[in-house]
Amino acid sequence: MRISDDQLRSYRASIDNIDAALVHLLAERFKITQAVGRYKADIGLPASDPVREQEQIARLRALAEESGLDPHFTETFLRFIVDEVIRHHRAIADER
Amino acid sequence: MRISDDQLRSYRASIDNIDAALVHLLAERFKITQAVGRYKADIGLPASDPVREQEQIARLRALAEESGLDPHFTETFLRFIVDEVIRHHRAIADER
Repeated sequence: MRISDDQLRSYRASIDNIDAALVHLLAERFKITQAVGRYKADIGLPASDPVREQEQIARLRALAEESGLDPHFTETFLRFIVDEVIRHHRAIADER
Repeated sequence: MRISDDQLRSYRASIDNIDAALVHLLAERFKITQAVGRYKADIGLPASDPVREQEQIARLRALAEESGLDPHFTETFLRFIVDEVIRHHRAIADER
């Protein structure tokens, strides 16, 4: 079923703008984590840092509550991104 | 193991800034999709719209390529968010 409706189209235009911003922020985030991955591999640090990850989760849960985002969703979201980052870091370390 | 290092700290400060921006954008995105969920429930539209989702994926894949983000990751990321949105929409529809 194809849904077409002015109100829905307006909502969707806003969602599309936000998604474009999310993609560009994620691209920037991965640029930095790639640099972190190379840096960690250079100085022989492990790909994963559980203490840092716990701190990130605690911080983002607080930010999520403040901004009205479901804290459980935020934690799952961060876990999803951090797992991708660790996968990249391992790939970088394995190339050395 | 606790990692502490100036270069790493600088990278992590940038990642934390980006994560705060991501959380706030996601909070805004969910505000809009909650409104979409209520609107769809009001006029009796289904929670999920596969044609719209395919269009979103195609658009975000193109944006991802442009910004240097892994298109496969972008697609998985959008799927993750859209699944959460559909869960919200179904919950709203069930409350009616």
